[in-house]
Amino acid sequence: MNETQGREAIAHVARMLRDIDICHFATRAEDEVLHARPMSNNRQVEWDGDSWFFAPRDGRLVSEIEREPSVVNAYRKGDGYTFVSVSGRASVESDPELKKKYWLDELARWFPNGPEDPNVALIRVEAEHAEWWGEEGDGSADLQAAEARA
Amino acid sequence: MNETQGREAIAHVARMLRDIDICHFATRAEDEVLHARPMSNNRQVEWDGDSWFFAPRDGRLVSEIEREPSVVNAYRKGDGYTFVSVSGRASVESDPELKKKYWLDELARWFPNGPEDPNVALIRVEAEHAEWWGEEGDGSADLQAAEARA
Repeated sequence: MNETQGREAIAHVARMLRDIDICHFATRAEDEVLHARPMSNNRQVEWDGDSWFFAPRDGRLVSEIEREPSVVNAYRKGDGYTFVSVSGRASVESDPELKKKYWLDELARWFPNGPEDPNVALIRVEAEHAEWWGEEGDGSADLQAAEARA
Repeated sequence: MNETQGREAIAHVARMLRDIDICHFATRAEDEVLHARPMSNNRQVEWDGDSWFFAPRDGRLVSEIEREPSVVNAYRKGDGYTFVSVSGRASVESDPELKKKYWLDELARWFPNGPEDPNVALIRVEAEHAEWWGEEGDGSADLQAAEARA
């Protein structure tokens, strides 16, 4: 079964993502090679279509999305058979309030100077399309609402 | 620590991949959107730089790689913290002997007509670059040997 839905699928995707912390974050580099790296989505409890990640401002992830914002975040629930793939557009958010809002103390392990450090970048991925497979059935959804396109 | 090695890293990557069956297989579609889907690498025991996957010949994965062969396969070991990402070039192999060589009986669940079915495609991913993170340390390797480039 492969049902295609609109933004009403967000609650369903949110439920699948609720307990998943780490995804493979794939980007396309200047040489057209696709790269993926593990990234924490900060255990966000209620996914609303946007995902948030912290990364070094001068790192490769940021430079790749600034050049080519189409990315995909691929999740697996534990070592089970529920998979969720979220395609979207990534951007770097420089608003210090947003950085503080999404900051978690455990990030200090990677970024000891905290969210105010200018070399700490907050990446936002706005979901455009989601697909899922597994225990809850297979499906896909176009998450770009008519209102968002208008 | 991030050591860059050449093809001598293949044995190291092979050891990390040995017990991992499923990856997120990411491609770039015609509309420039990146997609990822879970794919079994058929529990191959000794990875030599090539990965093999079966997929429907008329499906989206095959049409995407035929148009844009740069892909990335992202692996996680169980639900632990070892991650391996293999970037490479994908192609569809039509040689019936290769299809039989890599066929596993458990694939009949998805492809009941077996490897001779013309709608069963064998996809080969030739690794060009690998990165890994986690329990065995972080590293990356350019797997395109000088000999392969000559």
